[in-house]
Amino acid sequence: MITVALPKGALLKDSIARFKKIGLDFSAFLDSKNRQLQIEDPTGTAKALLVRAQDVPVYVEYGQAQLGIVGYDVLREKTAAVAELVDLQFGHCRMSVAVPANTYKQPLELPPHGRVASKFVHCAREYFHQLDLPVEIIPLYGSVELGPITGMSEAIVDLVSTGRTLQENGLVEIAVLFQSSARAIAHPLSYRLNANNLHDLVEQLR
Amino acid sequence: MITVALPKGALLKDSIARFKKIGLDFSAFLDSKNRQLQIEDPTGTAKALLVRAQDVPVYVEYGQAQLGIVGYDVLREKTAAVAELVDLQFGHCRMSVAVPANTYKQPLELPPHGRVASKFVHCAREYFHQLDLPVEIIPLYGSVELGPITGMSEAIVDLVSTGRTLQENGLVEIAVLFQSSARAIAHPLSYRLNANNLHDLVEQLR
Repeated sequence: MITVALPKGALLKDSIARFKKIGLDFSAFLDSKNRQLQIEDPTGTAKALLVRAQDVPVYVEYGQAQLGIVGYDVLREKTAAVAELVDLQFGHCRMSVAVPANTYKQPLELPPHGRVASKFVHCAREYFHQLDLPVEIIPLYGSVELGPITGMSEAIVDLVSTGRTLQENGLVEIAVLFQSSARAIAHPLSYRLNANNLHDLVEQLR
Repeated sequence: MITVALPKGALLKDSIARFKKIGLDFSAFLDSKNRQLQIEDPTGTAKALLVRAQDVPVYVEYGQAQLGIVGYDVLREKTAAVAELVDLQFGHCRMSVAVPANTYKQPLELPPHGRVASKFVHCAREYFHQLDLPVEIIPLYGSVELGPITGMSEAIVDLVSTGRTLQENGLVEIAVLFQSSARAIAHPLSYRLNANNLHDLVEQLR
């Protein structure tokens, strides 16, 4: 039986809808009373794990799930050994540099050894390295916008979808690192061996 | 004005109660409709930041908050340059090794190069290193109990308070790494210089 890793949060609803279209029903995860982290499709042909978005590549890399859905942002940050197969064209957002309004117009204006707060430490470090601009990356787990508000950092690198959070906090985007959307990923060996007809399933998701 | 970093989640209520006892009222954070991450005490003598537990040491280390409350578990995991001052005697829990029932009786029985899933990668690595038992630590962000359930790992290292989550998932504790509780921490330089009478505030919290 195939196992699918689904991400909690923003991508869950669309992920479940996509699997429903190809005949796999994991909508029990959408029930607010659900406490189970592992369910079977009613037809008994597939299982799903409900995990944190950042953990999807882990379960797929270790082969505990043969298939997973996760944002490109997480894949860029974690660089897991998984096969990235399909851009599912939902969950669009972008990884951006933002600063307080009326401060800097572009990243290169940031002071040398300035500070950048981010949940995406790896992406942020890589970006500023490519710009050849030495900055200190401050790793945060949440509410990154507090970095500039409290004066701890000059800028943030964070995911932006509607831009509402930035606006509410007086921040403006000055650069885009990359665009992100939901991706289907697979365990490389399972995909190569076409275990449980994985190829068909991926083709249907496409 | 002094700034205090308060942790979202399990320790928030008790933290706010403790500050209320010494005349600082940050209970606006407990209002479920509150969206602000930064508030002032009604007397105008102190400010509070509401941040993720793991981010409390960051704000205190960088001096954006002179004082913070955070679990000892986070301090052990992050090893931030902060002054650990008071054991506040609430939020008691323990960092434990747990395995599926009827498998291993103690950590040394784990197979060599076995796998241990944990959110507390640093604590877990340090513990097994001290035992001189080579294991692979699998970093997860949530629902660590899925590690043994899916067969991805033989054990987990996680925080346990009531033990209910373990029980519900058929896991049993086989070792305790350390006990944890809420701690008051301070920005080392601010504490040394007694900025804003930080000493008095810490004495009152004691």
